[in-house]
Amino acid sequence: MPTALPSWREGAARSAILEFVDRVTRRGPDHVLPTARVAVFDNDGTLWCERPAYAQALFIIDRLRELSRERPDIASGPAGRALLEGDLERALRHGLDVVSTLLLEAHAGLTVDAFAAHAERWLETAVHPRFGVPFPRLVYAPMLEVIDLLRAHDFRVFVVTGGGVEFVRATSEATYGIPPDDVVGTAVRLELERRAGKVELVRQAAFLGSPNEGAPKPINIQGHVGRRPILAAGNSAGDLEMLEYAHTGALPALCLVIDHDDAEREYAYQGVSVTDPSAPPIAAAALEHGWTVVSMRRDWERVFPDPVEA
Amino acid sequence: MPTALPSWREGAARSAILEFVDRVTRRGPDHVLPTARVAVFDNDGTLWCERPAYAQALFIIDRLRELSRERPDIASGPAGRALLEGDLERALRHGLDVVSTLLLEAHAGLTVDAFAAHAERWLETAVHPRFGVPFPRLVYAPMLEVIDLLRAHDFRVFVVTGGGVEFVRATSEATYGIPPDDVVGTAVRLELERRAGKVELVRQAAFLGSPNEGAPKPINIQGHVGRRPILAAGNSAGDLEMLEYAHTGALPALCLVIDHDDAEREYAYQGVSVTDPSAPPIAAAALEHGWTVVSMRRDWERVFPDPVEA
Repeated sequence: MPTALPSWREGAARSAILEFVDRVTRRGPDHVLPTARVAVFDNDGTLWCERPAYAQALFIIDRLRELSRERPDIASGPAGRALLEGDLERALRHGLDVVSTLLLEAHAGLTVDAFAAHAERWLETAVHPRFGVPFPRLVYAPMLEVIDLLRAHDFRVFVVTGGGVEFVRATSEATYGIPPDDVVGTAVRLELERRAGKVELVRQAAFLGSPNEGAPKPINIQGHVGRRPILAAGNSAGDLEMLEYAHTGALPALCLVIDHDDAEREYAYQGVSVTDPSAPPIAAAALEHGWTVVSMRRDWERVFPDPVEA
Repeated sequence: MPTALPSWREGAARSAILEFVDRVTRRGPDHVLPTARVAVFDNDGTLWCERPAYAQALFIIDRLRELSRERPDIASGPAGRALLEGDLERALRHGLDVVSTLLLEAHAGLTVDAFAAHAERWLETAVHPRFGVPFPRLVYAPMLEVIDLLRAHDFRVFVVTGGGVEFVRATSEATYGIPPDDVVGTAVRLELERRAGKVELVRQAAFLGSPNEGAPKPINIQGHVGRRPILAAGNSAGDLEMLEYAHTGALPALCLVIDHDDAEREYAYQGVSVTDPSAPPIAAAALEHGWTVVSMRRDWERVFPDPVEA
């Protein structure tokens, strides 16, 4: 039998994962029935690279550039101009509402099928600005091994992303082996239209409810999965409530926090280091609750499945 | 090998199901890849008995009766009094809004776990007024066989109900073998609260979006499943858009409409008979599109898995 988690180095994080899976699946006081073995993973920064920008932001900006050839109004305001130059940060200085509206309008009016085709093509062809490969190749190999390990132990594994649910679904099966119905994410409003005798679902320029970050994550897990997870993995403040939800259930739970501390092989940013006074809230929570912090630099033997230019 | 669909009598409906499953799973021009084999079933009146009232309505009325001992305000209005007497029809004469509010308040403030425990207990103990058995025993045996047949051919099967998603989830695994995450239904708003150090999700007295009937069914299928179904089954006007959605996709599709024409073994009501001028919209659609009408009386050798008093 091959060794489990081969991309993980010996250490506290690898041991915590292996021991948890063993503990809840072996007969004993902490045994958890297969129906309650639910695991949830944040996407950006937890399963794949989110720097220098979310893949989805780049995807939408590419679409805005295409649209702007026929719609000069997109470049008429300073936020639109900043977006077309790829400067999301500058665009955001003109207000989150203005930027959200521009981003939501980029694919409004498309059917869900047309949107999926756009997203699939982009994910196959667009390349990461530093690593020079399509974004799905920047999935974290060690996390794929965790998903495989969980599945081999009868866990149901869900992606719970702040990103657009339809965007992540366009790659979830190919990249993570996770089917579209096991992706929970931010959704836009859809309207039913009859076009040429066909029922079509058409994207509107508005969110359906709130974006899937913070408290909406556990709420949407309940709405979609109907059970409290016993394993949750994340890397930022938007994942805090999801991890707390798993952590405070009646069953044994494991919470993983990915620390981006590897500037050489990936990125180093806003670490979960608890000695850093500017550390984000998830770092404080990890310390308080004893969550397992995963150091990319120390815990991972490799980051991506295939070598990339660094 | 045992004969497929043993509770179905020879006839057009049984043949249509067997031929469709064979056609889309056999190598050939109509072959559908397993990832696209998605089937959706309405619940009340399609998978189990919905007369003389929805099980969920009776469940909520029982709860209101319990609550009314300590909350005289529930019986202070005519709609509340009608509900406490079990007369939903009379209650509705005072307005859908008034009744909805009363029904939503019945379980408001409960955590999702407490609600699930209430629903499970009720489903085990409350008995149907005519048949004298708990409601889950009034599942349609022929439909369970269709679900089994589809699963044996690598279909993913979802329940898409106008009923409350949490109520149906409380019995879906035991009754249909369908896990909670494969139930799509009407949802109430949840709020995240921290109670005694635990993150809890608490039911509010408001729907989340619209009830899952009509156009919301395909919209929520997309939100949850992310693919257009190729098989859809329903029995009433609320299922029309869901069946149209499956019917007008690019892939071969089968739509089933259950006709309640069996007063002796179950109920006869608002049939899909296309010769009846007062027939509901789903009957006209079935005729127009050539959907497969399933006659309980003629097509089913038995209705329920175990004999019940009639």
